[in-house]
Amino acid sequence: MRLLFLGDVVGRTGRTVVRDYLPGLIERHRFDFVVVNGENSAGGFGITEEIFQSLIDAGADCVTTGNHVWDQREALVFADRHERFLRPINYPAGTPGRGSNLYIARNGARVLVINVMGSVFMQDLDDPFAAVTAEIGACSLGHGCDAVIVDIHAEATSEKQTMGHYLDGKASLVIGTHTHVPTADYRVLRNGTAFMTDVGMCGDYDSIIGMEKDEPIRRATTKIPQARFAPALGPATLSGLAVDVDDDTGLARRVWAVRIGPHLEPAEPDFEASP
Amino acid sequence: MRLLFLGDVVGRTGRTVVRDYLPGLIERHRFDFVVVNGENSAGGFGITEEIFQSLIDAGADCVTTGNHVWDQREALVFADRHERFLRPINYPAGTPGRGSNLYIARNGARVLVINVMGSVFMQDLDDPFAAVTAEIGACSLGHGCDAVIVDIHAEATSEKQTMGHYLDGKASLVIGTHTHVPTADYRVLRNGTAFMTDVGMCGDYDSIIGMEKDEPIRRATTKIPQARFAPALGPATLSGLAVDVDDDTGLARRVWAVRIGPHLEPAEPDFEASP
Amino acid sequence: MRLLFLGDVVGRTGRTVVRDYLPGLIERHRFDFVVVNGENSAGGFGITEEIFQSLIDAGADCVTTGNHVWDQREALVFADRHERFLRPINYPAGTPGRGSNLYIARNGARVLVINVMGSVFMQDLDDPFAAVTAEIGACSLGHGCDAVIVDIHAEATSEKQTMGHYLDGKASLVIGTHTHVPTADYRVLRNGTAFMTDVGMCGDYDSIIGMEKDEPIRRATTKIPQARFAPALGPATLSGLAVDVDDDTGLARRVWAVRIGPHLEPAEPDFEASP
Amino acid sequence: MRLLFLGDVVGRTGRTVVRDYLPGLIERHRFDFVVVNGENSAGGFGITEEIFQSLIDAGADCVTTGNHVWDQREALVFADRHERFLRPINYPAGTPGRGSNLYIARNGARVLVINVMGSVFMQDLDDPFAAVTAEIGACSLGHGCDAVIVDIHAEATSEKQTMGHYLDGKASLVIGTHTHVPTADYRVLRNGTAFMTDVGMCGDYDSIIGMEKDEPIRRATTKIPQARFAPALGPATLSGLAVDVDDDTGLARRVWAVRIGPHLEPAEPDFEASP
Ligand SMILES: [Fe+2]
Ligand SMILES: [Fe+2]
Ligand SMILES: [Fe+2]
Ligand SMILES: [Fe+2]
Ligand SMILES: [Fe+2]
Ligand SMILES: [Fe+2]
Ligand SMILES: [Fe+2]
Ligand SMILES: [Fe+2]
Repeated sequence: MRLLFLGDVVGRTGRTVVRDYLPGLIERHRFDFVVVNGENSAGGFGITEEIFQSLIDAGADCVTTGNHVWDQREALVFADRHERFLRPINYPAGTPGRGSNLYIARNGARVLVINVMGSVFMQDLDDPFAAVTAEIGACSLGHGCDAVIVDIHAEATSEKQTMGHYLDGKASLVIGTHTHVPTADYRVLRNGTAFMTDVGMCGDYDSIIGMEKDEPIRRATTKIPQARFAPALGPATLSGLAVDVDDDTGLARRVWAVRIGPHLEPAEPDFEASP
Repeated sequence: MRLLFLGDVVGRTGRTVVRDYLPGLIERHRFDFVVVNGENSAGGFGITEEIFQSLIDAGADCVTTGNHVWDQREALVFADRHERFLRPINYPAGTPGRGSNLYIARNGARVLVINVMGSVFMQDLDDPFAAVTAEIGACSLGHGCDAVIVDIHAEATSEKQTMGHYLDGKASLVIGTHTHVPTADYRVLRNGTAFMTDVGMCGDYDSIIGMEKDEPIRRATTKIPQARFAPALGPATLSGLAVDVDDDTGLARRVWAVRIGPHLEPAEPDFEASP
Repeated sequence: MRLLFLGDVVGRTGRTVVRDYLPGLIERHRFDFVVVNGENSAGGFGITEEIFQSLIDAGADCVTTGNHVWDQREALVFADRHERFLRPINYPAGTPGRGSNLYIARNGARVLVINVMGSVFMQDLDDPFAAVTAEIGACSLGHGCDAVIVDIHAEATSEKQTMGHYLDGKASLVIGTHTHVPTADYRVLRNGTAFMTDVGMCGDYDSIIGMEKDEPIRRATTKIPQARFAPALGPATLSGLAVDVDDDTGLARRVWAVRIGPHLEPAEPDFEASP
Repeated sequence: MRLLFLGDVVGRTGRTVVRDYLPGLIERHRFDFVVVNGENSAGGFGITEEIFQSLIDAGADCVTTGNHVWDQREALVFADRHERFLRPINYPAGTPGRGSNLYIARNGARVLVINVMGSVFMQDLDDPFAAVTAEIGACSLGHGCDAVIVDIHAEATSEKQTMGHYLDGKASLVIGTHTHVPTADYRVLRNGTAFMTDVGMCGDYDSIIGMEKDEPIRRATTKIPQARFAPALGPATLSGLAVDVDDDTGLARRVWAVRIGPHLEPAEPDFEASP
């Protein structure tokens, strides 16, 4: 089974690179299931229903989010009617939408996706570890589902790695989002879980985490906000992770960085290579 | 001119990988100047004078640090007597040691190294941007020195990228440390400054940022500290960045990730390759 | 019904002032129920079983805590065997001890006490508002109990006031702890809940929040820890709040600051005064 | 010499209570110098030039601010032309306005006022302790001036108390602002500095730190912003501190809480009382 996860889509240029390259990636590599983090897809802040739909149309089977999920107010409304839309699971009971869901992949496999917000240096939601434990306890690999993907939207590398090792052997993939910078530590952990501290963004890397550089530099040097943050408009680079999952165990066999665009070293999976 | 920067050395296993591979790296690639971040080299917390010396003996021309600099109390004493030892420059006036220094590289070039602590999600020191501005103003590329290396020890990717773009064209290399995870965004920015959001660590990546996994997992799930953090003891992977600097301008021409060890995709520079 | 709540007892001098004055206060004012926050009673950090017992012996009906609850490791053991001991309720399921309990006051009334940790600028536990809502939902004023006391152990004045107004009409008393400084805003809110943003400490106020002044001043000026924090040893001032609760409604009629000692303006309740 | 300090004026109702009572207070007690913190005077967020002028007209000799200083953009312009307007001193060099100034009081005394922002849980500016040390070093009690007032705008009680004790004997008054809750720990420290951890606000206390209760409660329970914060509109209570300063030493002899309005226990100074 072949999984693809794409990092936070930032603004119009991020949407463009996903729309331009995701269909070809799916076709070339015959991905069975694709997750895209869309929390910054609407002008850098949140996501609209139309943009959500465009990511689905481009090939996403599930769109995850993070701390920016409600920046566009309409998300509070459409969250409930799209089962392919996830917001962090550790929001309070009663929050619109869902934080995890079970999907049927192209190969017929049942894929559990969980979107969870980290607690370190982030908004204070409920305990991410308890939330994920409960979810996986109710639908575990080999019993309730054939693959488990956890998007841990978090700042601290330590918290994301803690989640990865905590779930090692219980998830197919634990992948960090939020920092908008891909890490070079993607690999399969000891007990079979694919892990990457942060998958990076699909956006213009000639920027400050996807945003125009001027205002962040002004704020850093003057400590006074002077304008709104705006997404950078140059051509984007797509950043993601591809995972080869064992159909029998639901655990990962191999992972590859996926990078297409002008800023990062190009990378594409090679599922056919002998391991 | 050829620069090498190695990320936070964590514990005994991190020191071993540096000692084992740094001399060969220097010889193979004829590096003119080597910086090593040593803030976690003594059992994961701080640095001793003996360990500092061993890093110098292995080939470091300068050892930078970060928030853990004073974890070993003796650093407060030896900081003053080793000009190759740097602590973050934005500590208060009167703090032992120095936060920047000018060195003569193997090729005779004058290299200014600045070690600065970020302010976002970190200990509150003086403004890192003002500190670096003052330092570079007093000793600028092409006037006071032939190369400038800035180690920005910080948590937030945004702050590190802000520093990178702020100094773009004024430094040879701006490189992040502290998160212990190498990023895949190393490149030469628009105006000639080499940049990498975080260079990662020299340590055992089968760990949580270099530390044994048990206690971080216990703390995350119980919220109660139960033991001290201890560095992981398995074989380490070395992580760094190599930079080809133009002798005339002091700006970067090319960069390469440097990764040696069992956990990360291997990478080594190729200075001879045609650009 | 008459309630007394005493703020964080800090160190030996704090214990002394409680032991010296609490019995007399109870006798003079015929308090029906007394809560004491003991999170700093053992050398400023945590609480031992012996000290817990001494607070009970001095007249406390319930001892609450906060972020320092586990500083003395034995608390992890004795928490389970003392029903008069509370730790914050929003620790994960499975944490030793309990976060709320129902007690019988001297007048026979059933008093629900909830100890909850705030989330702003504090350790990341589960949502304090959801935790308190569930607890009060299961045992509400006039149904499951005759009085409700909530100790919200938190840093931000806004979070404590939010809890107060959120529970206004549903609790007899919502009282803040943790900052070690009594506020002058004690009063009965619009719907009958007694409230005080922070009750202060029982400790030596010629100090920095109960601790010797030297080390905090050194850290503030040098940014380098140089010694452990130690509780101040001078004579302590007791700080608390007295509440006159309507037996019929469980809501508050009047409140008085209680302050005995050399540092603060003296204050004692006057239950006999005509309202 | 008689000083009066009034806490953060919040919104229209806060301005009204200051305008209504400050002139009478000055007249009754013959205050020689009055400082008012105005950082929330314009709709809860920042201050306009017109409002600044109205506070001066009501009797303020100096208006201090804090983290909200620039919320109304015009403050960036008028800060430079009003010497009675202060913004925190530890903003970067080049920031509009000034962070301290020397004034002549009604009795002819030279009064140095310093406005400084704390670093704990606050925006990262330069070190408040170094900033204050430099300022007082250049203009010390008995040499450059006859009284020193420090407004430390900070969250943590520990940081404010550290500043108080650090300056004990070197300032006439060190007073905290920002939390909008008056503390009951006002007193003269051991070496003669008047101190109060927080002076509270001039605003409607039937609120959450001066703001309408609905939105803060919604955010606390849903973790989702749903509307802007708006200042509460009910009648305000004025909160301040009066200090009797020795003309010879510039140190404090006595302090009194000043509280006028419907929410807090009334308090007014009594300079004529025998000490
Ligand atoms: Fe994002
Ligand atoms: Fe995010
Ligand atoms: Fe480190
Ligand atoms: Fe660090
Ligand atoms: Fe406490
Ligand atoms: Fe506490
Ligand atoms: Fe304020
Ligand atoms: Fe403020």
